[in-house]
Amino acid sequence: MKLRISIFGVGLIGGSWALAMRHAGMTHEIIGCSRSENHLAEAKKLGVIDRYTLDPAEAVRDADVVILAVPLGAMQSVCKQIQAHLSPQAILTDVGSAKASVIEAVRQGLGEIPPRFVPGHPIAGTEKSGVSAAFDSLFDGRRVILTPLEHTDPSAVNRVRGLWELTGAQVELMAVEEHDQVLAATSHLPHILAFGLVDCLAGMREQEEIFRYAAGGFKDFTRIASSDPVMWRDICLANREAILKIMALYQKDLQQLTTAIEQGNGDELLGIFQRAKAARDRFCL
Amino acid sequence: MKLRISIFGVGLIGGSWALAMRHAGMTHEIIGCSRSENHLAEAKKLGVIDRYTLDPAEAVRDADVVILAVPLGAMQSVCKQIQAHLSPQAILTDVGSAKASVIEAVRQGLGEIPPRFVPGHPIAGTEKSGVSAAFDSLFDGRRVILTPLEHTDPSAVNRVRGLWELTGAQVELMAVEEHDQVLAATSHLPHILAFGLVDCLAGMREQEEIFRYAAGGFKDFTRIASSDPVMWRDICLANREAILKIMALYQKDLQQLTTAIEQGNGDELLGIFQRAKAARDRFCL
Ligand SMILES: NC(=O)c1ccc[n+]([C@@H]2O[C@H](COP(=O)([O-])OP(=O)(O)OC[C@H]3O[C@@H](n4cnc5c(N)ncnc54)[C@H](OP(=O)(O)O)[C@@H]3O)[C@@H](O)[C@H]2O)c1
Ligand SMILES: NC(=O)c1ccc[n+]([C@@H]2O[C@H](COP(=O)([O-])OP(=O)(O)OC[C@H]3O[C@@H](n4cnc5c(N)ncnc54)[C@H](OP(=O)(O)O)[C@@H]3O)[C@@H](O)[C@H]2O)c1
Repeated sequence: MKLRISIFGVGLIGGSWALAMRHAGMTHEIIGCSRSENHLAEAKKLGVIDRYTLDPAEAVRDADVVILAVPLGAMQSVCKQIQAHLSPQAILTDVGSAKASVIEAVRQGLGEIPPRFVPGHPIAGTEKSGVSAAFDSLFDGRRVILTPLEHTDPSAVNRVRGLWELTGAQVELMAVEEHDQVLAATSHLPHILAFGLVDCLAGMREQEEIFRYAAGGFKDFTRIASSDPVMWRDICLANREAILKIMALYQKDLQQLTTAIEQGNGDELLGIFQRAKAARDRFCL
Repeated sequence: MKLRISIFGVGLIGGSWALAMRHAGMTHEIIGCSRSENHLAEAKKLGVIDRYTLDPAEAVRDADVVILAVPLGAMQSVCKQIQAHLSPQAILTDVGSAKASVIEAVRQGLGEIPPRFVPGHPIAGTEKSGVSAAFDSLFDGRRVILTPLEHTDPSAVNRVRGLWELTGAQVELMAVEEHDQVLAATSHLPHILAFGLVDCLAGMREQEEIFRYAAGGFKDFTRIASSDPVMWRDICLANREAILKIMALYQKDLQQLTTAIEQGNGDELLGIFQRAKAARDRFCL
């Protein structure tokens, strides 16, 4: 049986997912839907999708799987547009970077959270966006977190898991709140810190001067500040509580570092730096 | 004439400098000096230095150029040890990451700041240390900042500039305070933020969990947290005032971001992220 897959938002993530499906040799039919005919035509030209439509109702008609790969801020409106047309048999999933907010958007947009809706999030990405940045191995060897709810249909979870495994990803299940907290710490906070640092330096009088002396460490550290500002605004709004919690913790740590520097407390500084280096070397290498 | 060069501290920076000199085909004699015979013997075995001594007095005897490549915290004691033996003709220079503090250490250690002392700092490095991490192209295409004082002998500055240019580096002169402020912003602050972030996460209960979900962005962002804790403690102590100034500015910016997230102020977040992305893309690519 030929699966019919509808992708809403054929950008970096949606496009890479489509390419990975094709690469895995699946003979699905992949239909793209978003706002801009230009973007969709490009996706078709690049061989990412088989066909496209600007009409959400048409996109989900007879779809077996519908994947939402639009920005977090667009999840609810897309759900509203497909609400009357989505078949109860269809599996619905998404790739949003924060989960509680997508679940709420689905509830608002569809009027309920369907048992065949499986919230998902691939821990993979680049600082680029749009379909031209998509590539078929983006998820290979990366983790994908699914956060099914209590009433989620286990067969739908298995189907979504199976599709992700075709991309080479390693799938794990997690509670919604845990996902949002873990990602706030490992992804959202670092992005906010990097954006903040570059903006702080860009606001200084010696701006040009300053960036001229940025070495490799600075470039690596701030690479994520080249990420899509709209996506990151959406994430900050969508995962507000978890982000504020980890930011408060971090600001406390930073204050402790500041105090140690003020007091010339070399032992305390050394202790913090050694703990950090040990953790970084143990977990990231 | 065969120049005699003495390197105090044949680690990542001192060792790479020696290798670059050799690579440039100079027929200097390079003498290494530090505390550990093991380290020095390794440096000789790796072909980084011609010979070594544990005796600072012997190391500087008849030296034409003396380069201090020891940790910031060791600069003063090394100067004390060579004080009675350094010829007034010898050129003295250093590679320390903060300049006002090295100048003060030289003043304390030698009892004066000799006119042929040329403070210097290569904007190059890796998160590794020790002579085994040294390589001859470390400075190639990178900037080196010299911060001569008013009474510094211009011919000494030119000699040091010429040696650095042999490594492929681009040499610039800068005022001491300007150097320390610029580096606090582009190098010292990012390192402190990265150490702080990893330590903050390592302190959380779900530690193992959390690092498992760290993606590429996190790894790049925190790579500098693998740097030598002792060196970074020294830098924090040595460049305290400039670091505290930029940390205060950054903490204000972070508070502004926190408030914007608290208030769900998407426009403000988007504005900050867009400015940061524009600056990052303009200056770092
Ligand atoms: N980038 C990452 O690192 C990353 C990682 C994991 C998860 N995610 C998540 O993946 C999702 C997509 O991110 P991305 O990086 O792939 O973004 P992207 O490359 O900008 O793609 C977003 C796509 O959504 C479409 N779109 C935007 N607004 C829409 C709307 N109102 N209705 C219908 N389509 C709309 C856009 O096409 P049109 O302009 O034609 O509408 C575009 O194709 C987000 O939810 C994000 O949180 C991103
Ligand atoms: N790494 C960077 O990214 C970077 C970049 C620019 C500038 N710098 C500056 O370069 C200098 C050296 O840094 P590095 O990264 O090359 O460090 P490193 O690889 O650890 O080398 C330091 C060397 O100094 C010697 N040393 C340490 N304490 C000493 C003492 N009390 N007396 C004599 N020798 C001593 C050590 O050898 P023994 O153990 O045998 O004594 C070692 O060979 C520092 O001032 C740093 O601020 C570093």
